[in-house]
Amino acid sequence: MTAQLSKKGEAWSARFSEPVSDLVKRYTASVFFDKRLAKADIQGSLAHAEMLAAQDIISAADHAEIVRGMTQIGQEIEAGQFEWLLDLEDVHLNIEKRLTELVGDAGKRLHTGRSRNDQVATDIRLYVRGAIDDISVLLAALRGALTDLAEQHADTIMPGFTHMQVAQPITFGHHMLAYVEMFGRDAERMADCRKRVNRLPLGAAALAGTTFPIDRLRVAKTLGFDDVCHNSLDAVSDRDFAIEFCAAAALVMTHISRMSEELVIWMSPRVGFIDIADRFCTGSSIMPQKKNPDVPELARGKTGRVYGHLMGLLTLMKGQPLAYNKDNQEDKEPLFDTVDTLVDTLRIFADMAGGISVKPEAMRAAALQGYATATDLADYLVKKGLPFRDAHEAVARAVRACVDAGCDLADLSLEQLRAFSDLTEADVFAVLTLEGSVAARDHVGGTAPRQVRAAIARVRAQLAG
Amino acid sequence: MTAQLSKKGEAWSARFSEPVSDLVKRYTASVFFDKRLAKADIQGSLAHAEMLAAQDIISAADHAEIVRGMTQIGQEIEAGQFEWLLDLEDVHLNIEKRLTELVGDAGKRLHTGRSRNDQVATDIRLYVRGAIDDISVLLAALRGALTDLAEQHADTIMPGFTHMQVAQPITFGHHMLAYVEMFGRDAERMADCRKRVNRLPLGAAALAGTTFPIDRLRVAKTLGFDDVCHNSLDAVSDRDFAIEFCAAAALVMTHISRMSEELVIWMSPRVGFIDIADRFCTGSSIMPQKKNPDVPELARGKTGRVYGHLMGLLTLMKGQPLAYNKDNQEDKEPLFDTVDTLVDTLRIFADMAGGISVKPEAMRAAALQGYATATDLADYLVKKGLPFRDAHEAVARAVRACVDAGCDLADLSLEQLRAFSDLTEADVFAVLTLEGSVAARDHVGGTAPRQVRAAIARVRAQLAG
Amino acid sequence: MTAQLSKKGEAWSARFSEPVSDLVKRYTASVFFDKRLAKADIQGSLAHAEMLAAQDIISAADHAEIVRGMTQIGQEIEAGQFEWLLDLEDVHLNIEKRLTELVGDAGKRLHTGRSRNDQVATDIRLYVRGAIDDISVLLAALRGALTDLAEQHADTIMPGFTHMQVAQPITFGHHMLAYVEMFGRDAERMADCRKRVNRLPLGAAALAGTTFPIDRLRVAKTLGFDDVCHNSLDAVSDRDFAIEFCAAAALVMTHISRMSEELVIWMSPRVGFIDIADRFCTGSSIMPQKKNPDVPELARGKTGRVYGHLMGLLTLMKGQPLAYNKDNQEDKEPLFDTVDTLVDTLRIFADMAGGISVKPEAMRAAALQGYATATDLADYLVKKGLPFRDAHEAVARAVRACVDAGCDLADLSLEQLRAFSDLTEADVFAVLTLEGSVAARDHVGGTAPRQVRAAIARVRAQLAG
Amino acid sequence: MTAQLSKKGEAWSARFSEPVSDLVKRYTASVFFDKRLAKADIQGSLAHAEMLAAQDIISAADHAEIVRGMTQIGQEIEAGQFEWLLDLEDVHLNIEKRLTELVGDAGKRLHTGRSRNDQVATDIRLYVRGAIDDISVLLAALRGALTDLAEQHADTIMPGFTHMQVAQPITFGHHMLAYVEMFGRDAERMADCRKRVNRLPLGAAALAGTTFPIDRLRVAKTLGFDDVCHNSLDAVSDRDFAIEFCAAAALVMTHISRMSEELVIWMSPRVGFIDIADRFCTGSSIMPQKKNPDVPELARGKTGRVYGHLMGLLTLMKGQPLAYNKDNQEDKEPLFDTVDTLVDTLRIFADMAGGISVKPEAMRAAALQGYATATDLADYLVKKGLPFRDAHEAVARAVRACVDAGCDLADLSLEQLRAFSDLTEADVFAVLTLEGSVAARDHVGGTAPRQVRAAIARVRAQLAG
Repeated sequence: MTAQLSKKGEAWSARFSEPVSDLVKRYTASVFFDKRLAKADIQGSLAHAEMLAAQDIISAADHAEIVRGMTQIGQEIEAGQFEWLLDLEDVHLNIEKRLTELVGDAGKRLHTGRSRNDQVATDIRLYVRGAIDDISVLLAALRGALTDLAEQHADTIMPGFTHMQVAQPITFGHHMLAYVEMFGRDAERMADCRKRVNRLPLGAAALAGTTFPIDRLRVAKTLGFDDVCHNSLDAVSDRDFAIEFCAAAALVMTHISRMSEELVIWMSPRVGFIDIADRFCTGSSIMPQKKNPDVPELARGKTGRVYGHLMGLLTLMKGQPLAYNKDNQEDKEPLFDTVDTLVDTLRIFADMAGGISVKPEAMRAAALQGYATATDLADYLVKKGLPFRDAHEAVARAVRACVDAGCDLADLSLEQLRAFSDLTEADVFAVLTLEGSVAARDHVGGTAPRQVRAAIARVRAQLAG
Repeated sequence: MTAQLSKKGEAWSARFSEPVSDLVKRYTASVFFDKRLAKADIQGSLAHAEMLAAQDIISAADHAEIVRGMTQIGQEIEAGQFEWLLDLEDVHLNIEKRLTELVGDAGKRLHTGRSRNDQVATDIRLYVRGAIDDISVLLAALRGALTDLAEQHADTIMPGFTHMQVAQPITFGHHMLAYVEMFGRDAERMADCRKRVNRLPLGAAALAGTTFPIDRLRVAKTLGFDDVCHNSLDAVSDRDFAIEFCAAAALVMTHISRMSEELVIWMSPRVGFIDIADRFCTGSSIMPQKKNPDVPELARGKTGRVYGHLMGLLTLMKGQPLAYNKDNQEDKEPLFDTVDTLVDTLRIFADMAGGISVKPEAMRAAALQGYATATDLADYLVKKGLPFRDAHEAVARAVRACVDAGCDLADLSLEQLRAFSDLTEADVFAVLTLEGSVAARDHVGGTAPRQVRAAIARVRAQLAG
Repeated sequence: MTAQLSKKGEAWSARFSEPVSDLVKRYTASVFFDKRLAKADIQGSLAHAEMLAAQDIISAADHAEIVRGMTQIGQEIEAGQFEWLLDLEDVHLNIEKRLTELVGDAGKRLHTGRSRNDQVATDIRLYVRGAIDDISVLLAALRGALTDLAEQHADTIMPGFTHMQVAQPITFGHHMLAYVEMFGRDAERMADCRKRVNRLPLGAAALAGTTFPIDRLRVAKTLGFDDVCHNSLDAVSDRDFAIEFCAAAALVMTHISRMSEELVIWMSPRVGFIDIADRFCTGSSIMPQKKNPDVPELARGKTGRVYGHLMGLLTLMKGQPLAYNKDNQEDKEPLFDTVDTLVDTLRIFADMAGGISVKPEAMRAAALQGYATATDLADYLVKKGLPFRDAHEAVARAVRACVDAGCDLADLSLEQLRAFSDLTEADVFAVLTLEGSVAARDHVGGTAPRQVRAAIARVRAQLAG
Repeated sequence: MTAQLSKKGEAWSARFSEPVSDLVKRYTASVFFDKRLAKADIQGSLAHAEMLAAQDIISAADHAEIVRGMTQIGQEIEAGQFEWLLDLEDVHLNIEKRLTELVGDAGKRLHTGRSRNDQVATDIRLYVRGAIDDISVLLAALRGALTDLAEQHADTIMPGFTHMQVAQPITFGHHMLAYVEMFGRDAERMADCRKRVNRLPLGAAALAGTTFPIDRLRVAKTLGFDDVCHNSLDAVSDRDFAIEFCAAAALVMTHISRMSEELVIWMSPRVGFIDIADRFCTGSSIMPQKKNPDVPELARGKTGRVYGHLMGLLTLMKGQPLAYNKDNQEDKEPLFDTVDTLVDTLRIFADMAGGISVKPEAMRAAALQGYATATDLADYLVKKGLPFRDAHEAVARAVRACVDAGCDLADLSLEQLRAFSDLTEADVFAVLTLEGSVAARDHVGGTAPRQVRAAIARVRAQLAG
């Protein structure tokens, strides 16, 4: 290094307290985040050791010692007494080192027929599988809570919006069930993803398999895996499952974000359709009327975080040659943070659903603004024989007349209505009410209260099944 | 507008040839890209009309007219004679307008009981379903071609890399099968995605369902959908399926990109493991030796495009209130481009697999560099009774001695080897050869030629099934 | 290829009409999108030829012939008579081939001392530079239009929101100026980006420079570049400028999206703060009251597209070894689409700003809901000597009393107000009005009409400067 | 809540140890990550208090008390003795609460004329400004270290690659300078970003400014800001600067990733161009020859993380209405992690540059493969009068003859060379050597050692300036 550089080196080094060598150690170590995998790591090691003994690769006595040591290590970790060392780099070496301290040579035999590459892949899969199971339970809880809310409001009329303009009347129950459908698809996606997570990489060793007579199917069975990974190179380098999980998580957050957007708008004073229980909001010491819907706003914001993690993982894997590269160590933090974000958000939303109070009068008043039943009048005329496009035109003229007169369609007399189409008869007024409009959409997926209740029953059966 | 602004307006307007009103029309129209949906649009309309007739909502005569008109329109489009008008905004209005020209009032009745919102959602689902079916066939073709290549090289030894350093010998066939596994998971994901694509939104109308006595299950059956969308608000606003498809596509491209990265490196003269047939490369008129692997490079580059579309679609849907908003029109171009990219890339790669020539001598020479069988020696010692971690240390010393002596492990005499562990015996030399090393990894997923052939048989059975 | 594969090949080939070799040609060609660079390509070639002649690398006669040929080619392209051939791959070869047809050997000499690698890099930079100049003009136009709107409503009071809850009164002019600031930063970023775009890569040749005695500074001057790229490897492989441009564009769209979100909410009937001129909306033939704000919705949606392109370009460049790789060809389509999106969107928004009608009564009514002047009361008490946190508490109690009594703060008598703090005197009522509140925020950046007008003058000076 | 839900609630609650109310508190609190802003928060508060006193809004005595309290708090934080409370939500309330404990009423007066919204915006800007300053120093250090390496190898010949195929000879010094250029642009972007970071939001208060006679320019001057934010709504809701910073950071990581990709390939045994000092690699206990370039691999991986944060932040801001929303709290973690990643990575790379050993023989051997001087021969013929495209063809025939004969161009006799063009003379051999080829590219930006040294001098002057 020239004198010039070393001087420059000094200049910038003075700004940083840590020497570079420590920094390299910290930069490349993972123990401070991957210790979260400790339980999975022990579980995987125990299954591996059991197989090694069954295959006579290690002795029964060594196996017993490993079990004893791992039991103690599990307890030490649980109790917060395990000392994690940066110098031992990662969760695997920290645990193996401690095992050897506790049980000697048996500990040194545990790593027979495996490598860190297949070990870490196994650990992450166990972790993601557990996360999917938790998230599935939470999605069901949220769907249940929204279904309860939908049931309470199967008849509560609100304006249905497109382009944030009043379109047609719907029920609040029906609106809630739209989200129940979304979170239902999320649960399906999680279940599909789980199939691909639940395959055992262990036995791939560093990248090529091992020379020991291992029994991979036995380990898979012990650990509850559906199958083994069928190619060792793929087994150690595959992180598809993490990306697929994050993509499914991104859609969960998309739905959370859409729902949050609506909750925030509905709670805005100009709209005033709902209120959210205080414990999900923050106030301001000076403006008691100002209750901020913090939880939905923050959840909407956290969507970005999960999208970012998905993009980060895709970028990470893009263009890596086979098999394992150190880049892969970067898979964990985005994955863990995605799991945490989903688990926390879903728990809070499942609880918050029960804390939403609906203001039916405000909804009704809004539905009465804006000729929401104009489509019903057009449909009425079609049923009387007018082609659809002609019926539309007749109604358009009627609405324009109302706008000029400053009244609603239902305020027109039969005679006035007949001016736009002489197919109109006295039974027209039934279709111009909000209740009539809603009740008439009476087919699978429609907003009629009867259909809303049928949809609720269907969801309940799914959740119970 | 103040005089100042209008002057400013003039200033910048002068740079642009198109008046703003035309620009608004073009900005909001979609016909120039959504006309790709024409076939799906006609197919959906015919199923809708059939149901309307069956339910006595339109007459049999009207139905016959609609069929007649649509048949002609289909032919006009096929023949390139259909005139697409920007003024009619989108594919739906262009076709409906032409239908009414051709069949009069029957055409005006077609839109009874539906809306553009559920119509476009149906069209896109039909389109994506077709795309998934094409892509599934292409994934199978690529897997088949790679399996053929693997079979030709089930015994061809190459170095297995981790961190781009030589790790252990593997076979080229085994390496190819890693990609066969990846594309196999891609096929699974496409199939899972198809389940959620294949649900019928039609009948949701604008957002709330319709007042006509429609039979949605009948339409679903006619169009080959597995089920109907069970909530009308969700039906018109859901684009999950497009995002899920793009996420699956992003993983396909990740695998294509990883494979491309390897092909490019393997074709670099310093590595020289393979050659790619001329038709996938470009030369340079001046340097005949310089054959550029254009196709894998470009495919690697196109990965970014697909990632970008996924990000674009997630951003698009994030935070939209229910139900339909004009934002959704932006779902199509990224989706179409993703489909095109996948279809073209997979076709070319399936063909290119047959155009890869392997250079076994270069691979073998590379595998002999770097003590690739050191792990085998360690495993040998473990089998003789040494604990794994101790065996590792003994071998490390042996390798270091070889490095100093400038020779390979297999060049040491038995006596020399025994200096590192007296457990070493004459049978050690069998494990130090490349062939011995590879053959010994003889378990499910291992690189032993026997296992490679078993894996090939397994894939063939899948592809046939 | 084995019989099995070729059968499979047939199976899937039947689904696709194009033979693979044509597909490869289309896959790797760029002429159908890079022909947009034709003008830049000719401009760059002319500057290069001028320098070659000045340096005596080609003769004056050859130079004259090249100028003659290029002039004709430019006219052919302008007139739509130029025949673009897929077989000639890209814009560069298409033009060079035509030039040689037109002027013979002189055409063959044009490529002396350059390569396609530095040629394409020069073309894109010329293109992006032009795009930045157009966008800068449009940003100024949009800022001007918003400033005009702000001036009309410098005194129009509306509620200021945080968390979509009413916080404090502001003026609509002040609100508009927030966007003027955002688009002002966008203009700064575009200008900064332009500095890095405006450096000449030509002369880098394939990657290492050329053996001809070229004069790069002369070419830079002719083309209006500020400097040359100082390293040839970097010159041909750098696409930072495209990414930086797309990042700046992503922020422009973020601002457009935020503004659009507000316009859409403000036009929703429950809020009703504004109306947007018809030509930026679409109606519905049946519901004349239903005017959909299509342009802002679509612009909000187009944000995703630009974010996606940024992500695509980052992914593209990530991990490419030096120097040029074919991956780079994928830089153009996202870049072009980003430019088109920005240019169209900004033009429409600049025009639409003049088409926003404000409804001051609705805004005022909304501002009166929700104790928007509570902070003013607290500030009043602080000025009378109460510590800020204590003043807050006193006001909180006052507001709570009003909520219970169903009245506003201004409705309380002096005596009632004194119950919460005996520092209150008769002058308090002036601070409780909307006008008083707004006028009191009278410092740089505050919402007082006086400050709004000062800010307008400042922006006008910037735009004029 | 119905009985059914509460049962379901119990079911899933049992899986989680924390009650929902605590979870909400943790979900919405930021103190555990924003305490990193403590120093900036205190600095901002002191400048605010100083101005309040100067404007007679608080007394000199109060000001003195605030200074005293803040000094102590700063020391408590430094010493790790400050107790951060989750219940106090964020860094601001934790510090203000402690201040009031320490100095009573003066503490309660500090918040006069400001709000948390402008306070947090000020804190983040101070933080980002400091981060940019650190990163700029590190970019200069890295550029300096790479320039030193370039100087050592200004004459070291290596093959220049395009498409990873050998193209033309270059020098290693020239190659390193390509990265020096990239990191130089990064430094420019950071400096440009800093201009927009360095504007003071304080004084915007909640969103509309304050009624106190504050002096924002004074505070700006005290804190070293170049200007104030000129619109209060924009001041509290703007996070452009964080996004712009992350976009600039994404480009830094793109360059780091490209360089890492090359380092990893160059260290691969088949290429063998360089070695990296041991402290940046990890070995394997069993394969001493296997030195894994962990640091560049990990840095390449960390690129994904930074891209992800950029996408996360863009998503976060997209579509937020003005002014402040709780979503914004999500800006901090991605920003902090981006800063940490850049600072650590740049420090390590600046140090690692000095740890790269070059293997000139391996580079030279590679440059001799592949007719790297064919372009020189073509240029030679052009100089003798042949049009460029014709010269190319002549050389192509010559190279093809060499390929058939298994020799290099320089191995042909003059007579043999003349067979391809009779313009060839004895002076041709000088241009066919690697040294001749490199030396001939002797213009600004070319690879000639003379130009490399000139470029080094230019960079050194920049770094010194």
